[in-house]
Amino acid sequence: MSTLKTMIEKAKIAREATLKLAALKNEVKNKALVAIAAAIKKNSGRIIGANEKDVTESKKAKISDVLIKRLLIDGDKISEIIEEIESVAKLDDPNGKILSQVELDRGLMLYQETCPIGVIGAIFESRPDALVQIAALCIKSGNAVILKGGSEAKNSNRILVEIISDACEKNGIPKGAVQLIETRDEVSEMLKMNDFISMIIPRGSNNFVKYVQQNTSIPVLGHSDGICHVFIDESAEMKKALDIAYDAKCQYPAVCNAMETLIVHKNIAKKFLPEIAKKYAGSKVEVRGDEETGKILKGIKKATELDWKTEYNDLVLSIKIVNNLSDAVSHINKYGSKHTEAIVTENKKNAEEFMDLVDAASVMWNASTRFADGFRYGKGAEVGISTSKIHARGPVGLEGLVIYKYKLVGHGQIVGDYSGKNAKKFLHKKIK
Amino acid sequence: MSTLKTMIEKAKIAREATLKLAALKNEVKNKALVAIAAAIKKNSGRIIGANEKDVTESKKAKISDVLIKRLLIDGDKISEIIEEIESVAKLDDPNGKILSQVELDRGLMLYQETCPIGVIGAIFESRPDALVQIAALCIKSGNAVILKGGSEAKNSNRILVEIISDACEKNGIPKGAVQLIETRDEVSEMLKMNDFISMIIPRGSNNFVKYVQQNTSIPVLGHSDGICHVFIDESAEMKKALDIAYDAKCQYPAVCNAMETLIVHKNIAKKFLPEIAKKYAGSKVEVRGDEETGKILKGIKKATELDWKTEYNDLVLSIKIVNNLSDAVSHINKYGSKHTEAIVTENKKNAEEFMDLVDAASVMWNASTRFADGFRYGKGAEVGISTSKIHARGPVGLEGLVIYKYKLVGHGQIVGDYSGKNAKKFLHKKIK
Repeated sequence: MSTLKTMIEKAKIAREATLKLAALKNEVKNKALVAIAAAIKKNSGRIIGANEKDVTESKKAKISDVLIKRLLIDGDKISEIIEEIESVAKLDDPNGKILSQVELDRGLMLYQETCPIGVIGAIFESRPDALVQIAALCIKSGNAVILKGGSEAKNSNRILVEIISDACEKNGIPKGAVQLIETRDEVSEMLKMNDFISMIIPRGSNNFVKYVQQNTSIPVLGHSDGICHVFIDESAEMKKALDIAYDAKCQYPAVCNAMETLIVHKNIAKKFLPEIAKKYAGSKVEVRGDEETGKILKGIKKATELDWKTEYNDLVLSIKIVNNLSDAVSHINKYGSKHTEAIVTENKKNAEEFMDLVDAASVMWNASTRFADGFRYGKGAEVGISTSKIHARGPVGLEGLVIYKYKLVGHGQIVGDYSGKNAKKFLHKKIK
Repeated sequence: MSTLKTMIEKAKIAREATLKLAALKNEVKNKALVAIAAAIKKNSGRIIGANEKDVTESKKAKISDVLIKRLLIDGDKISEIIEEIESVAKLDDPNGKILSQVELDRGLMLYQETCPIGVIGAIFESRPDALVQIAALCIKSGNAVILKGGSEAKNSNRILVEIISDACEKNGIPKGAVQLIETRDEVSEMLKMNDFISMIIPRGSNNFVKYVQQNTSIPVLGHSDGICHVFIDESAEMKKALDIAYDAKCQYPAVCNAMETLIVHKNIAKKFLPEIAKKYAGSKVEVRGDEETGKILKGIKKATELDWKTEYNDLVLSIKIVNNLSDAVSHINKYGSKHTEAIVTENKKNAEEFMDLVDAASVMWNASTRFADGFRYGKGAEVGISTSKIHARGPVGLEGLVIYKYKLVGHGQIVGDYSGKNAKKFLHKKIK
């Protein structure tokens, strides 16, 4: 199995690998991905066996059923994993795309071309299938990846990374492109390795992502909280308002793009709130509200400051009544997590104002917050959802795993000819 | 003058300002920029007066002539500053650009649209004109900015920011869009304000930028070292090689895109080195070299490990002879600062391999490293040069000061209809 390399050794090998990965053709990477899928199929018995050990140990350790469900790899899961890897192979090559092209002068052409980022550090809680997915996305985009999975998935992760690395090396992917680390100490070390690691992707609970964000100066792609709002404007159409407010809360409450707080314009509250309350009651949603809401929905629990700040991830909802659009926007910009925010209105001006003024990765007009997702956005594969304000925002596909470099192609041009007396003038002709 | 607000108060006001800035029309921002230019013209006497104080105090404090030259604002400098602000006003609006557009389903359209980032923290050493430039770029791109200038430019910075804020507020830019901080304590506080500040732009010495990079988990746009190389391949054309190796070192040695180490293929070294050495001798360049170089250029100082790691920023150069392209690439990827790297060769395959394998923001084939610059790249205005691997890389123009948000426009669509039995299928039709 893995020889005992130190974290710094692993990081160095990964960095070495990136320098070769950057020049690999798409066909080579796709061939390796197909080989990984085949190797996982061939070794499915071994994988399921290793996973059984993890599940048994987790049950002994009284880990929650939800986590055990996430941990479990059975035949169906293996098929899903294989399908996902194969679909990543089918995606367009994210590298080598010309983003812009400028003729600086006759025979001096500047290309801005996408290329891999370098070494990605990916840290997960539980879910060994997520590990395979991110490894596939990193190979496809020409990045090396150092993976840290949850300790409860230790045996599953080991065998998966062993199979992946082996298939990689046999198919032209440089050694060290996919590596595993297992201890918290290694994670702490990795978070300080700015010279080797170019981006950290944490996937897991809010607290875990926050911990990562606060303990590294390496850029982090991810999100912690998902406190999303739906604002029902005074001119909202009742059916749309009811459908969206219900879907955003109830369709899948445990996820980051579900609504946590419903904001209602005072002029529509008396008509809208009793109707939506009936729908929520049918799905056993616990409703809390501010004072004004309490006057309409008698007997509900009062929402406190803490409620506005809470991601319930459950069938609980806080409701606030506001005087106008501006108050709704202020509340969202104060308490929202910059993830996904929606307005329901028939007033185009209000919708545009809302979408411009609300500071969030996704803003929606007459659509459910639940649409904010890589698959639904048509990205094919999702790296994660980012609430960062730079690089990549919202649902991030392969485009978040590449950057660009400038390639300048000349015929011996020097800057001396373009400065001082009789300086040549630049052409700066935009080709693309 | 400025009332004494605490850092956190300033950050909060800046954040408030961004929420309004995000919806400002291009015309409003341009009008404000023109008004700033006019106000600087009108107040040029006061600015020059305040600057004289700074210069006098700096001379008393025995600050170096180079720094005093950078600090000085005279009539010519005022004209330059005004011209720069006016040219920023003339640039295209970087916001509101549709980067992609996908019809997720009939009547459910997803737009990926550029928007401002938020609050930018910009920290300078000396050069009050740089402060004006970055303020203008932030206004143009709809970002708020908190500026920290060098303490030796204290009086100049105060009056400039006073004039800029005043012209902003009178022309529809929200209060707090441009603010000044003056103490190191405020900078330390700012570097910890992840909730308010979305990006830090440091401009100054290597050590200063490194300090900033290592002391914040807020993303940093900038570069510290500029250790650039030129590789003369065995098939290089002699005139191109001589011109580029001379220009990259001598045209302006004090800047980050100047060459620090010249790498020469062993098969061309005996012919090339004596000729380039003659040119360097004519410009008083101190040449150091590895053992092989010493055999050709007798009597030169031996280059040590430290030389490969040093940005001389001066008429000093280290030379290394390599056996092949691969060794050149390895040396560059080990010692380079990921800034700008060039190859001189007539061999297209080698050029492409070099440009793919070298990990740098700009890679050049038969052109001088000195071209890596926002103006020469045709960007109109330069925010800085970034050696980061995410967000924006190389010479960064206004595009580095914007991010995007997704706007989803529907007619009441909910995710419930797209899942489970009889789920509707997505269309995912790429419009742009």
